[in-house]
Amino acid sequence: MNPVFEKNTRNTVKRGAKRARYDRETVYRILDAGFLCHVAFTLDGQPFQIPTCYGREGDRLFFHGAIANRMLAHLAKGFPVCVSVTHLDGLVLARSAFHHSVNYRSVILFGEARPVAETDREHALKVIVEQMLPGRWKECRKPSAKELKITSVLAVKIRDASAKIRSGAPVDEEADYSLPLWAGTVPLHMTSGAPEADPAMQTELPVPPSTLNFTP
Amino acid sequence: MNPVFEKNTRNTVKRGAKRARYDRETVYRILDAGFLCHVAFTLDGQPFQIPTCYGREGDRLFFHGAIANRMLAHLAKGFPVCVSVTHLDGLVLARSAFHHSVNYRSVILFGEARPVAETDREHALKVIVEQMLPGRWKECRKPSAKELKITSVLAVKIRDASAKIRSGAPVDEEADYSLPLWAGTVPLHMTSGAPEADPAMQTELPVPPSTLNFTP
Repeated sequence: MNPVFEKNTRNTVKRGAKRARYDRETVYRILDAGFLCHVAFTLDGQPFQIPTCYGREGDRLFFHGAIANRMLAHLAKGFPVCVSVTHLDGLVLARSAFHHSVNYRSVILFGEARPVAETDREHALKVIVEQMLPGRWKECRKPSAKELKITSVLAVKIRDASAKIRSGAPVDEEADYSLPLWAGTVPLHMTSGAPEADPAMQTELPVPPSTLNFTP
Repeated sequence: MNPVFEKNTRNTVKRGAKRARYDRETVYRILDAGFLCHVAFTLDGQPFQIPTCYGREGDRLFFHGAIANRMLAHLAKGFPVCVSVTHLDGLVLARSAFHHSVNYRSVILFGEARPVAETDREHALKVIVEQMLPGRWKECRKPSAKELKITSVLAVKIRDASAKIRSGAPVDEEADYSLPLWAGTVPLHMTSGAPEADPAMQTELPVPPSTLNFTP
């Protein structure tokens, strides 16, 4: 497999091209740092998008749930999708209003959604659950045959993708550096609170390893 | 203005309809809790999306930067866009793999992007900067006439929208509640670190009030 996604008219970053990356390693690292994406698709000329959880395995992303139903009806048409994953890393506060920005890591990828066959759905659901919380799969009840039958699961093979990363200090116009204005960044990151047991639990059980070890 | 967005084929939530809200107050509250969105649009049948910062004023969202150029060329066609804002609030760890989920607040909205006239761009940029960091506008250098001339700014009037909110404990199959499996939630929230001054600052200046008071 080519370690770099080929650049084409679809995935080539035009604005801020210096921040763009096309290697699989960077794309996969950004995908693997999250589990929530936005899936965009077009129905009758109207763009739609839906936030949903995903799991990556190799060059494929798996989805289930909200995204599946509206899209499944259109899969037969060889439905193109655009998936984005964005991690917000900070505010970038420049001297000029014009150069205010954010630090972030993002991936935009393109492919076509395909339904996952019933026999492969359990594996796909495992990939999705493990993406959200590594180690969780073996701690929960596996899907029943009936659940697998009624579950819509989609796979998107990544055809092409681009990553974009901004980090570090603001960049201002040369003349502005001498202005008596504070400039800098404010780091942002996702943090987790203490696990909250479901009040409906009938016996007291310890918090399992997956959840104890979780860091967002 | 109607306090509730009219439901139509475009904005009606089909999956998890009980979690859907259509009132402007809820939609605006979710929009106002963030400043980063994903804008989806279609070019020649191909869906695209771009993460970008926004500012809301009344029933309009303003954008500038990355989103603007690829879209501007197509605005003349009365270009429909779909914008999403999603806040991730927690992991939802059910007893069954099948019912794993996340807690979140999200908005999906629809409209058409229009260019903002040069005379209105300074105001639109103010709305964008203030959405990211309230109070920041008066602390930074305002855009010059030249910057306003070359800046692409778009406005999207919100035609229809829906919000979707999930909160609270997992919901499992009735029979699963007696299983000896831990279930619960892990709260997630964005936090900010200490402001980092730009090393290129030529004099030492105090961190300004906007940044001192910032909470993500």
